Amino acid sequence: MSALEIARKKISFDVNKLSHFIWEGEERFKRFMAFQKLCSSDPLLRNNPKDIGIGRAETYELYAKKMKKLLEVADLRDIKEFATLIYPEALVSSLNYEMFMPTIMNLGTDEQVKLFYEPASRWEILGCYSQTELAHGSDINRIETTATYDKQTKSFIINTPSLKATKWWGSDMGITATHVVTQAQLYIDGKRCGVQNFVVQIRDVKTHQTLPGILVGDIGAKFGYNAKDNGYLRFDNVRIPKVNMLSKYVNVSDDGQFTKTGDDKVWHATMQLMRQHFLDSVWKCLGIGLTIVIRYSLQRKQFKDSLGQEIPIFDYQLQQHKLIPLIAEMYGCMLGSKKVFAMAHDNVARIKQKNDFSKMMEVHVVLSASKAYYTWNCFFALEKVRQCAGGHGYSYYSGIPPLITEMSPCVVAEGDNTVLSLSVGKVLLMYLNKAMQSGKAPNTTCDYLEDIFNYLTELKQPLVSKECTRDLNKVLAALRYNVAFNVANAGQKLQTLMGDKGLTFKESTDKHLGILLQEIAHTQSNYWTYRTFLEEVNTLTDPNIKTALTQLCLLYGLNKILEQQGQLFEYGVLSGPQFVWIRETRDELISNLKDNALGLVEAIAYDDNSVRSAIGDSQGNPYEKLYHWGQGPQSIK
Amino acid sequence: MSALEIARKKISFDVNKLSHFIWEGEERFKRFMAFQKLCSSDPLLRNNPKDIGIGRAETYELYAKKMKKLLEVADLRDIKEFATLIYPEALVSSLNYEMFMPTIMNLGTDEQVKLFYEPASRWEILGCYSQTELAHGSDINRIETTATYDKQTKSFIINTPSLKATKWWGSDMGITATHVVTQAQLYIDGKRCGVQNFVVQIRDVKTHQTLPGILVGDIGAKFGYNAKDNGYLRFDNVRIPKVNMLSKYVNVSDDGQFTKTGDDKVWHATMQLMRQHFLDSVWKCLGIGLTIVIRYSLQRKQFKDSLGQEIPIFDYQLQQHKLIPLIAEMYGCMLGSKKVFAMAHDNVARIKQKNDFSKMMEVHVVLSASKAYYTWNCFFALEKVRQCAGGHGYSYYSGIPPLITEMSPCVVAEGDNTVLSLSVGKVLLMYLNKAMQSGKAPNTTCDYLEDIFNYLTELKQPLVSKECTRDLNKVLAALRYNVAFNVANAGQKLQTLMGDKGLTFKESTDKHLGILLQEIAHTQSNYWTYRTFLEEVNTLTDPNIKTALTQLCLLYGLNKILEQQGQLFEYGVLSGPQFVWIRETRDELISNLKDNALGLVEAIAYDDNSVRSAIGDSQGNPYEKLYHWGQGPQSIK
Ligand SMILES: Cc1cc2nc3c(=O)[nH]c(=O)nc-3n(C[C@H](O)[C@H](O)[C@H](O)COP(=O)(O)OP(=O)(O)OC[C@H]3O[C@@H](n4cnc5c(N)ncnc54)[C@H](O)[C@@H]3O)c2cc1C
Ligand SMILES: Cc1cc2nc3c(=O)[nH]c(=O)nc-3n(C[C@H](O)[C@H](O)[C@H](O)COP(=O)(O)OP(=O)(O)OC[C@H]3O[C@@H](n4cnc5c(N)ncnc54)[C@H](O)[C@@H]3O)c2cc1C
Repeated sequence: MSALEIARKKISFDVNKLSHFIWEGEERFKRFMAFQKLCSSDPLLRNNPKDIGIGRAETYELYAKKMKKLLEVADLRDIKEFATLIYPEALVSSLNYEMFMPTIMNLGTDEQVKLFYEPASRWEILGCYSQTELAHGSDINRIETTATYDKQTKSFIINTPSLKATKWWGSDMGITATHVVTQAQLYIDGKRCGVQNFVVQIRDVKTHQTLPGILVGDIGAKFGYNAKDNGYLRFDNVRIPKVNMLSKYVNVSDDGQFTKTGDDKVWHATMQLMRQHFLDSVWKCLGIGLTIVIRYSLQRKQFKDSLGQEIPIFDYQLQQHKLIPLIAEMYGCMLGSKKVFAMAHDNVARIKQKNDFSKMMEVHVVLSASKAYYTWNCFFALEKVRQCAGGHGYSYYSGIPPLITEMSPCVVAEGDNTVLSLSVGKVLLMYLNKAMQSGKAPNTTCDYLEDIFNYLTELKQPLVSKECTRDLNKVLAALRYNVAFNVANAGQKLQTLMGDKGLTFKESTDKHLGILLQEIAHTQSNYWTYRTFLEEVNTLTDPNIKTALTQLCLLYGLNKILEQQGQLFEYGVLSGPQFVWIRETRDELISNLKDNALGLVEAIAYDDNSVRSAIGDSQGNPYEKLYHWGQGPQSIK
Repeated sequence: MSALEIARKKISFDVNKLSHFIWEGEERFKRFMAFQKLCSSDPLLRNNPKDIGIGRAETYELYAKKMKKLLEVADLRDIKEFATLIYPEALVSSLNYEMFMPTIMNLGTDEQVKLFYEPASRWEILGCYSQTELAHGSDINRIETTATYDKQTKSFIINTPSLKATKWWGSDMGITATHVVTQAQLYIDGKRCGVQNFVVQIRDVKTHQTLPGILVGDIGAKFGYNAKDNGYLRFDNVRIPKVNMLSKYVNVSDDGQFTKTGDDKVWHATMQLMRQHFLDSVWKCLGIGLTIVIRYSLQRKQFKDSLGQEIPIFDYQLQQHKLIPLIAEMYGCMLGSKKVFAMAHDNVARIKQKNDFSKMMEVHVVLSASKAYYTWNCFFALEKVRQCAGGHGYSYYSGIPPLITEMSPCVVAEGDNTVLSLSVGKVLLMYLNKAMQSGKAPNTTCDYLEDIFNYLTELKQPLVSKECTRDLNKVLAALRYNVAFNVANAGQKLQTLMGDKGLTFKESTDKHLGILLQEIAHTQSNYWTYRTFLEEVNTLTDPNIKTALTQLCLLYGLNKILEQQGQLFEYGVLSGPQFVWIRETRDELISNLKDNALGLVEAIAYDDNSVRSAIGDSQGNPYEKLYHWGQGPQSIK
């Protein structure tokens, strides 16, 4: 029996059942597996080790063919839900359904949906999304592209006033897209009416020729995303009809009156949903990485034991302590991501059905913190995964480098993590302020604000015995105190800065509170994710799966406590000997989980074609595969 | 005046003088600048943005031409000392002088030096170094390649017994090298005589044809190092003359008697020197990254202040707190690397002159810990650098991705960091054991072992007032306690494991003490590096430079304390309010250092051709350069 077969025998639960849980039911799991089958069995759709490392232009061409084929043979729903991680260099033209269509649907009128969404849904036009300019990304309010309304012709003139204002980074824009949703400063009669969204056609739909006044192209070599033609775009006074300004929430009348036509909070609420796709791929990316390295670690041997037998590296305390907590991290991000999008969908439903905006801010807090910390945690986790594979992790055929280049932009794109976490911290300070004024905590998942009222006076150390460190709810209490104390601490500092020193809120946060605000967001994410993990575990019915995931959940919580050891000490939430117990319990958990590690990652169920790793194949034999893959066309002769 | 010019005016010291300090004197600095001038002014030698992202085969070809030209027009000494970081994808055939020649010199007899070293030094033969096999890297004792002595013909037969035993990764081996130093299990009359070093010719020197019995080639696509033909190599009973076994310390007589012919500790001592080149490039790599991102942060603006002025991102507390500590990290690694190699050279001199091996172990500890933690720290620092550049950090033209792929293997190659740090921890436990037996600490830089005798009884909290947190020596004391307590802690655990539980030393360390051993190595590195930093700062005479570097040194120390906050609390070395002071002092330091940040990185003095960044150019104008570079040949049309 191979090392992997032996390890599979030791798994204490039914891996298939866990897969159903992860993929939200048996039916969807079957769909996922069928889609993978489709991708692996078709010669064009299949990932071929020979294609690893080919040039940018060839990669683009190949992936364009794959996408074309996919659209012919697969359901668009399946492509949207499952394809991303299966193809390492990102899919050509995916922005059409990831960003272009949802933006039209969310910000467009019925007429605009008919005009732009529908043809895009039939792939008659190919859309992309281009907001970022060379000189402005995070601060979208300062972009420089202008849209000047011309009453005479009832049209907008889109212009790029300077080199800095060149649109930059737009994915699929370089050579693929025919249409773009772009943002520009709207001017009417010389008056600025804010940043608005415009649909601009940039290429002829039939000939694919660039239209007059448009300068567009690919921005060249990047760290990864080789199948993506990220682009630049300049407008030389390009005229577009009035109907091309997305007008669900704003309107320009024929004679140039600018009005708001609805609550643009609805816009924000629906736009939040667009991050689902993005966040959903983060834990999957780490999942693939862990699948590779755990399989490899069970087979790789290094140094011998006292009996002269070589030791599989997975048997070393350090390798287990590096990898098993990352499995917990991956499950935390998975369950957290699912929950946050359930909340976001519920929020939109409330708004649409009952005009109820009460959950808006809470979703913003949870979603922004999750985006920032899940992408950071999973990114750094993947880097550890690479290191755990030793030298072979540096080979492209390990499958790990493309996962790293895929995850790298996630920490800055779709909202820079730092900027997002600052925003979370600021909202929580506002909550605190409101709570202080009203004398009661807001009715949100940020229930830890309640603790602030007991701050310093009523603190009960939650982990006062070894037994407590095994109590999932006591661990929750410790994490809850952690964020509460951070909020309270920042609140006090803010008072000093604004009160005694007379600074504005903005000066205080920009120059003095950044670190604390980030700590708030960080510990909020830890607390909320652990809470969600725990809630999910409590719903499980299969006893063996429940046991394993409960251990994983506790491990997640204890590791978050250990990462914040200094703070928890300083705040008096925990003290010296308690950390000895916490580490003992953590060690027990890792030791209990080690025989299930393989099952926990294989339950994600990416097949060999998707994992595309010579060292992480489900059948084993890493050296044979490395040897043969390495001699493919990328081997210089 | 441009933002960079304004920033340069604020620097409080003479940048040129600091450059002399960094480059070890004015003369060497001038040599470095002249070499850079040579590289930037020659059309072939110059880094051209057009070459970024070209295919592997083209990269190799181009770099081979560059190397040829360099060897014609530059001093080999300059190439060795300065070229590596200037060329992003590693230099073709550099292993000839980095590994092949030094190995021959260190392990070869005079005859072998004549036979192999001398022609290599004239580039008549091209050497490389191939130890790692597909299945064995860290554990070199278990490699499977065999060298069987044949008395009849007085030759060795080198053979690859299995696919797993294929030599793998050897840099420059894939298509360039004519000769390889390789390791094999020596067998004489069926008896194993350990792993020995053999020189094997693999290609004809004139025709470059692969020789009979040799199967060799390039291993394909990697994360980076695109100009390096890392190779595989298989021997089919290849016969080599007896003189090809490196024999300074071992000998096989004609009739097959195996003898040791010297103290192989000398071997280890000299081999240690070979890491100099490697470690020397780590801080430089980070230095280039910081040069890029600090210049960019001074120019990039995002969001406006209360007066409506856009804020350069460098003005945000968070951006400063992300970057300025990394400057301290970079200087710590720089000064530490220089010191450790001074110690290693001194060690070799002692051994050769006085047969004095007393410093051997200490150099091993300091060098291994430095290798592990400098590469880890600088690697993760570079990743932060990338994130600090926002979206543009993902563009190859930022210059940051190639630095990341350059640093990525450093954490596993030349000794896996985990394996090295475990070894450091084990040596320190042995030291502790000796000290306990003799009642006195060893006479080494590991002077913190002295503290262990006062463990628990005589601990004096070092930072008992705000003023203390500004006292460089008190900070040293805190870091010293940190490592001492870790050693003592692990020592106690080991006693329990071996005494009460009856485990062997190996079982104890493999299965139970890995984490603690790593913590020992980590805090040893922090303590020793800070101590070295402080010693170096004390030798400075220029008052302005001294002020700036003293602040940087203190920042380094305080940050290491903050990173270990939990441990220091737990050990009782520090307590609650002290951390408030520490953070206040840190904030003061960052605020004092911020106007010198640019000077501190520009003093490293890599020119624009070496920095090769569109956003980190010394003249500014990041957007113009990104715009133009992005439209080069890598832009898909
Ligand atoms: C692969 C990839 C694909 C992309 N695709 C698209 C696309 O399809 N369409 C599109 O429009 N854009 C796209 N982008 C652009 C992306 O959205 C932006 O790069 C992203 O929003 C980050 O903004 P920035 O680059 O302006 O970063 P910056 O905001 O300039 O960040 C630089 C640094 O400044 C710091 N900083 C900024 N503001 C503050 C503050 N207030 N306080 C403290 N620190 C601060 C940041 O934390 C960071 O360290 C893409 C980018 C990448 C890398
Ligand atoms: C770019 C590059 C260039 C190279 N160039 C050369 C060259 O020119 N010549 C050459 O001979 N080789 C070369 N190598 C190979 C390199 O030296 C090895 O990859 C390196 O020594 C690491 O060994 P490994 O791959 O066996 O890692 P492994 O030891 O297999 O490491 C895998 C994992 O196991 C863990 N592990 C291993 N042992 C233990 C233990 N005792 N306790 C706990 N954990 C453990 C490690 O920490 C890691 O997490 C190169 C490699 C790269 C990436």
